[in-house]
Amino acid sequence: MAQAAFYEGDRRIRLGLGEPVDPGAGEVQLQVSHCGICGTDLHIFHGAMDARVEMPLVMGHEMSATVRKLGTGVEGFELGDKVVVMPLAPCQACPACDAGHSHICHNLNFLGIDTPGAFQSFWTVPAHTLHRIPANLSMKHAAMIEPLAVACHDVRLANLRPGDHVVVLGGGPIGMLVALVARHAGASVIVSEINPYRVELASNVGLEAVNPSETDLIALIMRRTKGRGADIVFEVSGSQAGADIMTELLRTRGLAVIVAIFAHKPKIDLFRFFWRELRLKGVRVYESQDFADAISLAAAEALPLDELITDIRPLSALRSGFEDMEKGGQVMKILLEI
Amino acid sequence: MAQAAFYEGDRRIRLGLGEPVDPGAGEVQLQVSHCGICGTDLHIFHGAMDARVEMPLVMGHEMSATVRKLGTGVEGFELGDKVVVMPLAPCQACPACDAGHSHICHNLNFLGIDTPGAFQSFWTVPAHTLHRIPANLSMKHAAMIEPLAVACHDVRLANLRPGDHVVVLGGGPIGMLVALVARHAGASVIVSEINPYRVELASNVGLEAVNPSETDLIALIMRRTKGRGADIVFEVSGSQAGADIMTELLRTRGLAVIVAIFAHKPKIDLFRFFWRELRLKGVRVYESQDFADAISLAAAEALPLDELITDIRPLSALRSGFEDMEKGGQVMKILLEI
Repeated sequence: MAQAAFYEGDRRIRLGLGEPVDPGAGEVQLQVSHCGICGTDLHIFHGAMDARVEMPLVMGHEMSATVRKLGTGVEGFELGDKVVVMPLAPCQACPACDAGHSHICHNLNFLGIDTPGAFQSFWTVPAHTLHRIPANLSMKHAAMIEPLAVACHDVRLANLRPGDHVVVLGGGPIGMLVALVARHAGASVIVSEINPYRVELASNVGLEAVNPSETDLIALIMRRTKGRGADIVFEVSGSQAGADIMTELLRTRGLAVIVAIFAHKPKIDLFRFFWRELRLKGVRVYESQDFADAISLAAAEALPLDELITDIRPLSALRSGFEDMEKGGQVMKILLEI
Repeated sequence: MAQAAFYEGDRRIRLGLGEPVDPGAGEVQLQVSHCGICGTDLHIFHGAMDARVEMPLVMGHEMSATVRKLGTGVEGFELGDKVVVMPLAPCQACPACDAGHSHICHNLNFLGIDTPGAFQSFWTVPAHTLHRIPANLSMKHAAMIEPLAVACHDVRLANLRPGDHVVVLGGGPIGMLVALVARHAGASVIVSEINPYRVELASNVGLEAVNPSETDLIALIMRRTKGRGADIVFEVSGSQAGADIMTELLRTRGLAVIVAIFAHKPKIDLFRFFWRELRLKGVRVYESQDFADAISLAAAEALPLDELITDIRPLSALRSGFEDMEKGGQVMKILLEI
């Protein structure tokens, strides 16, 4: 039997034992090492996705593991291999898959949301989801690969160029990783965040971070760019305030990248889009290349991942992890050791 | 002395005589032949731009003319040359001009709005604004070059490819020209328009046009594209309804092109932008290449411009032209013979 954390609806998390699932053809059973708590997991915990998820649900998709059992027909992996999972199982039959956009498949099975995830000792997944990680990459840092791949995807789709002036609106885990990947790619980056703890943490990893309720962000970017405006704004706050300021910050033909999940339709200054010929792009999850890029960056120790991991706790602390995230206090990324 | 129509505020148009302006260095005096009435002119007539314009104002910028006088230092033009004017005089010093986007200069002088325009017999303009037109292009069709250049710009910036499925939301003069240019570029085009006269006119020039209050536009595009969605949606209606439907019509990674001038900030489904990785681009006026493209298209008689010109009237009919446009009835493009 294997330990697992089950979401049972209405903010209930039950620790229990589950029967490990033997890997079928083309599947692999993993022994999970670490798994981070994602904002989406918190969203599920809040009941906001009860219509989508099947309960009891084992959540968790930001993970690292070793290969424990191989199903028939699996090639290229051996027992004991250190891996991470790209938790997407597309249908390969819808118009998005046909167009080569299988990461945003219309019928996407997101592992850990639509089917069981990694908040359990033994996790059985399709072999095509695996990415092997190098020996020197710690299992702790490897559990950051999934959110880091999101950031790699966002920066890649932004066609960011060295020297670009970038503003990241929202300094949570994804915003922070986007800022770090953008900086690593040669951009000049400002993070805008209202939570003082996050502003300080961003400063501690060498990012320029400002609180837009204290600093005139528009004036700041205009000073930096001689009145030109930002080349790229990543909207990671999901707020009307973020949607308002993004159009003000951009230069002519600048790009707004929508990373956040907007729960409500914000009002958008389409006149400004017209007037300045601005551009906007929605970006979601990642493709294989982004996982490969994230693994390279993490293995090269190019980013201060340690500083973003503010807590490592046992699986039994999942509920307390959610509660600390809700408080919006002194946490960035919480990992569970499974 | 030369005839001119002056806007004097509060819906007043006065016909009068003006002293022709002698061309200074680098300038040319034109004898105006035809000049179309633009939606922006109507906007000025309504007083909506009184804060920007200097009264009395001679409006008009969709025109054709012959060269009447050359200022000193003007090369490449001779008296009698048939020309159109690209009515933009950028400052060449702002960040937009520096970045090569002088058509959306931060301090743009738009001829006919910020300085006198072509609703007068003799019009003096900077020589750099002139585009010569071929002998076979009629002065009437040439007066359609300016709005046609808008459409060429919009389609060019959309990176439209042959075979693309395109929806144009709004079938006024610009929407119609965008649809025609897109079709000429090889796209499969549907025009969405609620005015029955415009729907019929679109059909008469061979465009597929539907009234979205009668036809389920989303179902239609999904049938046409096997559930994929439109590659490109041109938003030319400036309405919340248009802003709502554009995100529903697009395929994964499809492009919304914002052509309309939105007077109010619409609510935009940024979640859908995220979910489908949609893109959006604001487009405004034109660049020299677009004028050249428009002249080529018109000279090749590639588009049914005659059908779009629903009326040719004398300059004295400017006011009645505005009134007919206000009624939203049986007019598409009204030209004035100057």
